[in-house]
Amino acid sequence: MKGNEALAYGALKSKLNAYFAYPITPSTEIPETLAKEFGSEEYPEFRVFLQAASELEAINMVLGAAASGVRAMTATSSPGFSLKQEALSYAAGMELPLLVVNVNRGGPGLGNIAPEQSDYFQMTKGGGHGSYRLIVLAPNSVQEMASFPKIGFDLAFKYRNPACIAGDAFTGQLKEDTIFPTIEPTEYDVSSWAVGTKGRERHVLNSMNLDPEVHAKHVTHLDEKYKVIQRDEVRYETYLTDDAETVIAAYGITSRICKSVVNKLRGEGSKIGLFRPITLWPFPYEQVRKLTEQVKRFMVVELNTGQMVEDIRLGSEGGAEVDFFGKVGGLLPTEREIEEKLAKEAP
Amino acid sequence: MKGNEALAYGALKSKLNAYFAYPITPSTEIPETLAKEFGSEEYPEFRVFLQAASELEAINMVLGAAASGVRAMTATSSPGFSLKQEALSYAAGMELPLLVVNVNRGGPGLGNIAPEQSDYFQMTKGGGHGSYRLIVLAPNSVQEMASFPKIGFDLAFKYRNPACIAGDAFTGQLKEDTIFPTIEPTEYDVSSWAVGTKGRERHVLNSMNLDPEVHAKHVTHLDEKYKVIQRDEVRYETYLTDDAETVIAAYGITSRICKSVVNKLRGEGSKIGLFRPITLWPFPYEQVRKLTEQVKRFMVVELNTGQMVEDIRLGSEGGAEVDFFGKVGGLLPTEREIEEKLAKEAP
Amino acid sequence: MKGNEALAYGALKSKLNAYFAYPITPSTEIPETLAKEFGSEEYPEFRVFLQAASELEAINMVLGAAASGVRAMTATSSPGFSLKQEALSYAAGMELPLLVVNVNRGGPGLGNIAPEQSDYFQMTKGGGHGSYRLIVLAPNSVQEMASFPKIGFDLAFKYRNPACIAGDAFTGQLKEDTIFPTIEPTEYDVSSWAVGTKGRERHVLNSMNLDPEVHAKHVTHLDEKYKVIQRDEVRYETYLTDDAETVIAAYGITSRICKSVVNKLRGEGSKIGLFRPITLWPFPYEQVRKLTEQVKRFMVVELNTGQMVEDIRLGSEGGAEVDFFGKVGGLLPTEREIEEKLAKEAP
Amino acid sequence: MKGNEALAYGALKSKLNAYFAYPITPSTEIPETLAKEFGSEEYPEFRVFLQAASELEAINMVLGAAASGVRAMTATSSPGFSLKQEALSYAAGMELPLLVVNVNRGGPGLGNIAPEQSDYFQMTKGGGHGSYRLIVLAPNSVQEMASFPKIGFDLAFKYRNPACIAGDAFTGQLKEDTIFPTIEPTEYDVSSWAVGTKGRERHVLNSMNLDPEVHAKHVTHLDEKYKVIQRDEVRYETYLTDDAETVIAAYGITSRICKSVVNKLRGEGSKIGLFRPITLWPFPYEQVRKLTEQVKRFMVVELNTGQMVEDIRLGSEGGAEVDFFGKVGGLLPTEREIEEKLAKEAP
Repeated sequence: MKGNEALAYGALKSKLNAYFAYPITPSTEIPETLAKEFGSEEYPEFRVFLQAASELEAINMVLGAAASGVRAMTATSSPGFSLKQEALSYAAGMELPLLVVNVNRGGPGLGNIAPEQSDYFQMTKGGGHGSYRLIVLAPNSVQEMASFPKIGFDLAFKYRNPACIAGDAFTGQLKEDTIFPTIEPTEYDVSSWAVGTKGRERHVLNSMNLDPEVHAKHVTHLDEKYKVIQRDEVRYETYLTDDAETVIAAYGITSRICKSVVNKLRGEGSKIGLFRPITLWPFPYEQVRKLTEQVKRFMVVELNTGQMVEDIRLGSEGGAEVDFFGKVGGLLPTEREIEEKLAKEAP
Repeated sequence: MKGNEALAYGALKSKLNAYFAYPITPSTEIPETLAKEFGSEEYPEFRVFLQAASELEAINMVLGAAASGVRAMTATSSPGFSLKQEALSYAAGMELPLLVVNVNRGGPGLGNIAPEQSDYFQMTKGGGHGSYRLIVLAPNSVQEMASFPKIGFDLAFKYRNPACIAGDAFTGQLKEDTIFPTIEPTEYDVSSWAVGTKGRERHVLNSMNLDPEVHAKHVTHLDEKYKVIQRDEVRYETYLTDDAETVIAAYGITSRICKSVVNKLRGEGSKIGLFRPITLWPFPYEQVRKLTEQVKRFMVVELNTGQMVEDIRLGSEGGAEVDFFGKVGGLLPTEREIEEKLAKEAP
Repeated sequence: MKGNEALAYGALKSKLNAYFAYPITPSTEIPETLAKEFGSEEYPEFRVFLQAASELEAINMVLGAAASGVRAMTATSSPGFSLKQEALSYAAGMELPLLVVNVNRGGPGLGNIAPEQSDYFQMTKGGGHGSYRLIVLAPNSVQEMASFPKIGFDLAFKYRNPACIAGDAFTGQLKEDTIFPTIEPTEYDVSSWAVGTKGRERHVLNSMNLDPEVHAKHVTHLDEKYKVIQRDEVRYETYLTDDAETVIAAYGITSRICKSVVNKLRGEGSKIGLFRPITLWPFPYEQVRKLTEQVKRFMVVELNTGQMVEDIRLGSEGGAEVDFFGKVGGLLPTEREIEEKLAKEAP
Repeated sequence: MKGNEALAYGALKSKLNAYFAYPITPSTEIPETLAKEFGSEEYPEFRVFLQAASELEAINMVLGAAASGVRAMTATSSPGFSLKQEALSYAAGMELPLLVVNVNRGGPGLGNIAPEQSDYFQMTKGGGHGSYRLIVLAPNSVQEMASFPKIGFDLAFKYRNPACIAGDAFTGQLKEDTIFPTIEPTEYDVSSWAVGTKGRERHVLNSMNLDPEVHAKHVTHLDEKYKVIQRDEVRYETYLTDDAETVIAAYGITSRICKSVVNKLRGEGSKIGLFRPITLWPFPYEQVRKLTEQVKRFMVVELNTGQMVEDIRLGSEGGAEVDFFGKVGGLLPTEREIEEKLAKEAP
């Protein structure tokens, strides 16, 4: 099963209610798979599949559905994700739980349809306007593509905030055996906030507060929520870091190539390990800080010109060498290239 | 004259050729002023003023005009800026020189129309997809609103990259005396790249490179350009930092309040100074690094929940205490609040 | 119950499957009523209610739904109906059965929201491009508003052609007692043409035939269908026309005022009757021709500047005097005005 | 020169000020030609050429430009013309002088790009909502394509009403020698109504009149204007009709084929002539009525399934046989087919 298909089934098994589609390569297998399963008796909760007229319309329909408390989702790829930034800012402002998948392709502009990780900043720092954050999960296998939709929805509903799955063109297209764990979909109690006319208290969801005092209170409330998420929801993987002097930091598809490098160099006696952020936001700064107590050097490997490397630097606060190795344009680094980079620029 | 009006006249005196409008408070005085002057004999180069049907259309028209080598511009405010992210990524990918003004208002979502600086990340790190950057200039006076359009166009054409003026709802609405310096508009030679049918070599501008090798070369070329900009185009202001042990870092309207605080505390004998980034990107990391050699503490003051503070941390690399004081929702910090913050959390 | 509400329930009782909404006064009670009933157990076939982003989108969604063979519908008012003309031409070209309601308001342009019948030509002759026709039903009571959706769907499916209910701002807002007849919804066999992936033969619906010979055959096929409809589906009401020398011709709300006039003048001994077309297309030319054998004068009363009067002239072929009395702007004719008109211009 | 090119130059020589483009085959040579000439010193009044983002946007921009009193124009083909109906109704309601070209192609729906005359009803009767009319001119040669833009603008400005040139895919693509007569562009005094801020009295143009009395007055005013146009502006061509017993009625490209038939049959001794409406609206009913005094039979030849034939019937009022011969799908009738039709169904 392809990563994109696995993600679609993972969403269905988490009781996805509504999907709003606007296809773009390399994410199109997600709506394709969902369209095929729409109406199937196996997924009676999957009640809406709608092909919207544009990326903006798709995400705004997700907002509308999410406001009613259902599990709503869309998927896109880099240029489409850019088009959704305004709406995602609105969703964060209105505290709407929803799931958006960004299968990162080559950029900027039209770029190409090969894998990159160049939307890291867009997903974790910027994107839309205002002081807000997306919860960003970065799977590195088809198995994780299958199991992250549930985690995404759980976090989105727990904190009433948009969650994002940061795929890449490689993981999306990758075929691997996938065991669908018995996903036990969570039931979310939305009665205190969701809109909807029948038998529910009247609620209004809005992101506008013209009075600065009122808006300041709201933004502060959001910020406090984000601090709780940063404290409680960080996810990461460490591999052979206990005694490591050098740690490769990588996420998504890149982390798998780096793991092979670690395995090989460990076999040659190097004290090397791997640090993989799973939540790109909240970022595991604290873990980087702890690693910095022992590690002399981080080598950050990304499919961009240097984005997560800033977060590693922020975590290590000058306490370790932080090097960067990037590949762009849809090219993946080879193990050999990473080894050479490690060798050449050793401190 | 209001800041927004000054900016409009600054653009006209820099020989603005084409403006594509989609109004949004608090940036609307910019198109209003330009509409009034459209057709005036004083600005014969100002040949196109067009009210587009949406934010997306306005920025895409700017791209089209910029592709022909003319001085093209639009202005917007936070939600509108979010809507323009896809197009700005395309502009960076196609290496189009253009000017976009973002008069930052309260966010996320609809927020309000009061001043914030919460689009810092969006302008400097994220925004659109892919590995690209905007050149971002942050004026802190009506005078600078008047003179930055020329600087913006100059940088945009020198590097063939979109430039952004980061205003805020306060500076945009502020009335101050403005002396229009004799702006000597630069002539840009666009013959080697601009499109246009008459008497020009045929050029094609495109942001798509399906071949990963070709795209990698293009992204690397962009990255090298960005490195040159980071080396050569950093702008900042320091105020009484020579012997300072504490430095307040702030930009835009906030920097003016902080300057008053510095003046007052200097009067009381404090070794305190002000560091004001003028280019938010390229960020003056090197200057922060140098200041860190002597400074014990940075106090970063922003109208958000903490964005530029990350860049100060990246610049100081753990070598100084970095504190943050933010106001949100459209509220400005008072001098007293800043003083208290400085006193309370002193290291 | 208001006429618009009755129409909504009439559609529901005819097993409406999908409604695509874009509200416009004075038709908005139709989507409002349907939205309220959406999800009700009483109408399990009503599976899709969608608020589209524009009039164009709403009608194009109706086309998409209709292509799959379900009962799909939208309602609008004059300016919105103009916006739907391209899509209705496509629907006729693709032979899609669907129902569109046009609650005629004052025009041209924005006009006002009071009753007119000035879209008669648009509905019966022109509208979109190409040689095609809508089947147009004109109710003149709340009772007919309730029962015409079933007739509209029946004709639409029988002939695979768009049907239109021509309401007006008066009938739509009128409150009358309505008896919902036990509507026995027809089952339509769409297996020979409808698109849809599951368990159905593959069909393609398209309105493009680049080869002139092929397209000529298609247009001729449509024309033959229209001739059958003209022969078999004409509906009209005659009232006291058997011995009439003068016949008032009117439809919709106007016909009710004219009936009162007939009643009054009959009481005074006049040989006067009423002719009410119920299908505006196919128009009852043959009945007009027959009436012409005995009638000396037609008085056509419309809420426009003279539209159906052309069809009466075409039917009477110079064999009778054909006079016209029109009211515009949202004003209804009084009985007295009609009587005066009849008296003044008598032949 | 092609008909479409001739039309473009005819517009330029009539001092076209603004063209708003949305291309569609077979009208695209019009914007192409204008784009090429944009900026040329020969046409200094041609100040705006803008490629809009959709058909709707193009026509609405024409409305905006026309409101300021300049010569504004767009061209399209059948499906695009349908999309413009709402705006044309608004233009008529606001009494805006403008020129729209409809190069009629095969319909309904996508149809094909070959010649038809199936938009006759749409242009002359229906189209948009409300009681309004377009002034419709039907050229039948490249020479007329060149000279009708001036006539169209003259009528549009004289009556403050949209004018339409009804081309067809054949005339648009036809190449013929064209002599550009010294077109003496008319100067229009728009000072009493046109909007615009500088040095002009403030005017408001609007098509909304919520008060029925006010709106009735406005619609009546329009209707009176239309009656004057019907009285004063009818244009037509008669050929050998003085003693004709049979008259072929045809317009546009069809009229040329029919003229050849007349020539041939006259050579054989038939008393046959040709009647060609040049203004499709106002239609020359009076001339048809006069011809009916002497003519026994009209044979109406159209590229549709029967549209202008209704107007011939309305004009002849049962006083003559009215037959119809139509070709559809993009096929033109041959002379032989017309002769056979004349022979076969002779009364």
